[in-house]
Amino acid sequence: WQGTLYSMVVFGATMVVMFWASVFLYTSFYFTYMPQESITWPIHFQYNACEDRPGICTNPEAIISVTDPARGTLLARGQKYRVVVDLEMPESTTNQRLGNEPQPFSSGMFLVSMDMRSHGGESLRQASRSTMLRYKSSLLQTISTMAFAPFFLYGVQEEKQMVTVELFSQYEEDPVTPLSEVYVRLATKHVELYGAQLRIHAVFSGLRYLMYHYPLTAAALGIGICMVFLSAVVIFSWYQFSGSAGKQLGG
Amino acid sequence: WQGTLYSMVVFGATMVVMFWASVFLYTSFYFTYMPQESITWPIHFQYNACEDRPGICTNPEAIISVTDPARGTLLARGQKYRVVVDLEMPESTTNQRLGNEPQPFSSGMFLVSMDMRSHGGESLRQASRSTMLRYKSSLLQTISTMAFAPFFLYGVQEEKQMVTVELFSQYEEDPVTPLSEVYVRLATKHVELYGAQLRIHAVFSGLRYLMYHYPLTAAALGIGICMVFLSAVVIFSWYQFSGSAGKQLGG
Amino acid sequence: WQGTLYSMVVFGATMVVMFWASVFLYTSFYFTYMPQESITWPIHFQYNACEDRPGICTNPEAIISVTDPARGTLLARGQKYRVVVDLEMPESTTNQRLGNEPQPFSSGMFLVSMDMRSHGGESLRQASRSTMLRYKSSLLQTISTMAFAPFFLYGVQEEKQMVTVELFSQYEEDPVTPLSEVYVRLATKHVELYGAQLRIHAVFSGLRYLMYHYPLTAAALGIGICMVFLSAVVIFSWYQFSGSAGKQLGG
Amino acid sequence: WQGTLYSMVVFGATMVVMFWASVFLYTSFYFTYMPQESITWPIHFQYNACEDRPGICTNPEAIISVTDPARGTLLARGQKYRVVVDLEMPESTTNQRLGNEPQPFSSGMFLVSMDMRSHGGESLRQASRSTMLRYKSSLLQTISTMAFAPFFLYGVQEEKQMVTVELFSQYEEDPVTPLSEVYVRLATKHVELYGAQLRIHAVFSGLRYLMYHYPLTAAALGIGICMVFLSAVVIFSWYQFSGSAGKQLGG
Repeated sequence: WQGTLYSMVVFGATMVVMFWASVFLYTSFYFTYMPQESITWPIHFQYNACEDRPGICTNPEAIISVTDPARGTLLARGQKYRVVVDLEMPESTTNQRLGNEPQPFSSGMFLVSMDMRSHGGESLRQASRSTMLRYKSSLLQTISTMAFAPFFLYGVQEEKQMVTVELFSQYEEDPVTPLSEVYVRLATKHVELYGAQLRIHAVFSGLRYLMYHYPLTAAALGIGICMVFLSAVVIFSWYQFSGSAGKQLGG
Repeated sequence: WQGTLYSMVVFGATMVVMFWASVFLYTSFYFTYMPQESITWPIHFQYNACEDRPGICTNPEAIISVTDPARGTLLARGQKYRVVVDLEMPESTTNQRLGNEPQPFSSGMFLVSMDMRSHGGESLRQASRSTMLRYKSSLLQTISTMAFAPFFLYGVQEEKQMVTVELFSQYEEDPVTPLSEVYVRLATKHVELYGAQLRIHAVFSGLRYLMYHYPLTAAALGIGICMVFLSAVVIFSWYQFSGSAGKQLGG
Repeated sequence: WQGTLYSMVVFGATMVVMFWASVFLYTSFYFTYMPQESITWPIHFQYNACEDRPGICTNPEAIISVTDPARGTLLARGQKYRVVVDLEMPESTTNQRLGNEPQPFSSGMFLVSMDMRSHGGESLRQASRSTMLRYKSSLLQTISTMAFAPFFLYGVQEEKQMVTVELFSQYEEDPVTPLSEVYVRLATKHVELYGAQLRIHAVFSGLRYLMYHYPLTAAALGIGICMVFLSAVVIFSWYQFSGSAGKQLGG
Repeated sequence: WQGTLYSMVVFGATMVVMFWASVFLYTSFYFTYMPQESITWPIHFQYNACEDRPGICTNPEAIISVTDPARGTLLARGQKYRVVVDLEMPESTTNQRLGNEPQPFSSGMFLVSMDMRSHGGESLRQASRSTMLRYKSSLLQTISTMAFAPFFLYGVQEEKQMVTVELFSQYEEDPVTPLSEVYVRLATKHVELYGAQLRIHAVFSGLRYLMYHYPLTAAALGIGICMVFLSAVVIFSWYQFSGSAGKQLGG
C-alpha cells in the first residue's frame, strides 16, 4: 500500500497548492477589477471680500484636481459614479435669512454648479442643483438649544447642518477624455460655510455589486471556480502523464 | 384497458401543457398590454440668484427629459395619464409669508406651469395650476411643534409639507408627436423648496382597470379563457385525427 | 582560574563600553535625523486705520521671517510639514455680523491667504483658505454666558474662539530655494483679532513616525542594532588578535 | 598657651574682616553688574481736538525721554529688554464701537507704533503691534456691573481695562548709538484713554537670571567665593610673613 500512501500525499499536496493558487488568483482579480469605492477631496472655496462693507462680493468657487500624479485618472473605465458635494453650514441668521430686513422673505435656496473638466480645461459634463438649509422654526430652535445645551456648551454638538447635494447620480467617464478637474460654484453671495468636500462614490452593479456587498460569498464562489478550473487542468495533465507512462510500461 | 390508460395519460399531459401555455399567453399579453403604472423623475429647478441681496431673482424653472434612450417614448398609445408635480416645501417664514413686513398680507398662492413638449421643442399641451402651502395658524404650529418636538429633534419628522399639484388628469399622447420633454416653472420668486419630482400615473380604464386592480381575478379569467380556446383547438384537432384514424382503421 | 576571571572582567568592561557607545551613537543619530516637531511664531498684523471713521481700511497683513540666523532654514529636507494659522478672535458683534445694519445678512466668511517666499522674495507656494467664527445662536450665547459667568467675571475664561486654519497639509521644501519668509493676509477689513500665530508641524512618516511616536521602542531597537554591529566589530578584532597572538605563541 | 590664644584672636578677627570684605565686594559687584530690572515712564499723549465737532482729529502721539541726566543711557550693554506699553482704557462705547452709527461693524483693532530714537533723533528700531479692548458681550457686562456694583459705587473698581501691548520682546541696545527717546503713536482717532505708561523690563539670562531669581543662593555663593579668594591671599601672606619671621629668628 505504499503506492496508495504516496498517491494520497501527492493528492493532498496538490489540493493545498491549488487552494492557495486559487486564493491568490481571486485576490489579484479582486484588486484589479474592483475600483475604489469612495474618494473624498476637500473643497477650498475662493471669493473676493467686499471693498466697503462686510461680506463677500463674488460667488464662492473652487477647482479641485481629481487626478492622481502616479495613476492619472482615479475613475475606473465603464464604472458609474455618484458625485456628491457636502456643505458644512452653520444654522446662522445669514444662512437662514430670518429677521425684519428690507427684503424679508427672500428665498434661502441657492444653486450648486459643477463642471467636470478634462485635462485641457474642456467641459465634459455640467450640472447645477438647488439646495438650502433644512428649515427649523424659531420655536423648534429654542427647544433644540435648550434640550441640547450641555452638548453645545461643551462643544460635543454644534449648531450646524451637513447639507448634501447630489450633482450626478450616474457619472460615467469617457476613456478618451478622462476627468481631470472639477469646478464647483455656489451661486450665492449670502452663504456661510465651515467647510465643504467633494465625494465620488462608485455605484456597483452586476458582478461588482456582488463582490462589494457579499465579499465572503463572492470570495468562496470565486475561489471555488478557480479550483474547479485548476482541477480540470491537473486531472487532464494526470491522465496524459499516466497514459504515456502506461504506454511506456506496457511498451 | 391499456387503451384507456393511454388515453388518460395523453389527456393529463395535454391539460398540463395547455395550462402552462395559457399562463404564458396571459403573462405575455399582460406585459404587452399594460403600460408602466407610474414613472417618477426628479425636478432640478434652475434660477438666478440676486446680485445685490439674498434671494433669487428669476422664477425657478426646469426641463425634464422624459424619453427613454432605448424605447423612445415611455407613454403607451391610447392610454390616459395623470401628470402630477410634488413639491417638498419647508413650512418656513418665506413660504408662509408671515410677519410685519411692508406688504404683510400678500397671498401665499403661486402658479405651477407645465409645458409638454415634443422632440422639436414644440408645445403639445400646457397647463398651469395654483397651489399653496396648507395653512397652519401660529397657535397650531406652536402646539404641533411642542407635541412632536422629540420627533423633530431626532430628525424623524421635519417641519415640511409635501404639496402635490395635479397638472393634467387625462393626458393622452398623440402618437404622431410623442412627448419628449416637460418644462416646469414656478411663477414666484418667494418660495423655498427642498426638492421636487414629476410623477406620471397611468389612469386605467376598462380592461386595464380590471387587470390592474383585480390582478388575481383577471389572471384566472384570462388563463381560463385561454384554456377554453386551446381546448377547442385541441378537441377539434383530436376529432380530425381520430376521424382520419378511424377512416384508416375502417379502410 | 585567574585567566577566566580576567576574561570575565574584560568581557564585562567591553559590554559596558559598547552599551554606552551605542547609546551615544543612537542619541546623536536621533538629534541629527529628527527635525523639530513644531515651530511657532507670533503673527503681528499690520493695517491702516481709516481716516475719517473708526475701523481699519486696509486688509491686515504680516510678514513672518522663518529663518534661523545660525542655521538658515528651519525645515528639514524631504520632510512634509503642516502649516497652520491660529487666529484668536473675540465673539464680538463685528466678528459675528449680527444686528440691524443696512446689509444685514452679509457672510461672515473670510479668506486667509499665505504666500511662502524664498530669500529673494520669490513666491514658492500660495494658498488661500476660507474660514469663519463658529456660529452660536443668541440663545446659546445667553445660556453660555449665564452658565460660565463666574469664570468670565474672574477672567478664567473669555468670550473668544481660537480659529485654526490649515493652509498647507503637505508642505515640502525645495532644497534649491529654501523658505525664508511667510506672508499672511486676511482678506477682510471687518475682523477683530486679539492675536495670531503661525504653526509649522512636521508630519512624520516611516522611520521618523516610529521614532517620534514610540520613542522607547525605537531607542531599544536602535541601541540593540548598534550593539550588534559593535559586537561584530569587537569579536572580529578579538579573533584577529587571538589568532595573531596564538601564532606568536606557537611561533 | 598665650601664643595659641593670640593666634585664635588673630584668626577670628581675620575671619570677620574677610567676611565683611566679601559682603562688600559682592554687594558692589551686584549693583554694578545687575541692571535695573524694570523702568517705568508715564506716556503723555498729545493730539488736536476737532474744530467743528467733538472728538480728536489727529492720532495721539507722545515722545518719552528715556535717558538719565546723570548716567546717560539707562539700558545696560549686552542686556536684552522687553518693551511694553500699558494702556488704561475705559470700557466705553467709543472703545467698544457699539451702537447704531452709520458703519456699525467696523473693527475695534488699532495699531500701537513705537519708534526707538537715538540722541540725534535717528530711528533705531521700529515696531507696530495690533491691539484691542478685550470683548465683553452686553449680557456679560450687565452681569459684571450687577455683581460688582458696590465696588463700582465706592470707586474701588472701575469699568476699565488695562491693555498691555508688547512692542519688543528682545530689544538690545547698540552701544554706539544709545537709545535716547521713544516715540509712541496710536494709529486711531477713535480711542479713549485714562492714561498710559511705557515699561522696559530686563530679560535676564545666565548669571543675571540666577542673581535675579535666586538672590539668597547667589549671594551665599558669591560671598563664599570671595571669602575663598581672600583666604587664599591671607594664607599666602601669612606663610610669607612667618617664613621671613622664622628666617629672621633663626638668622
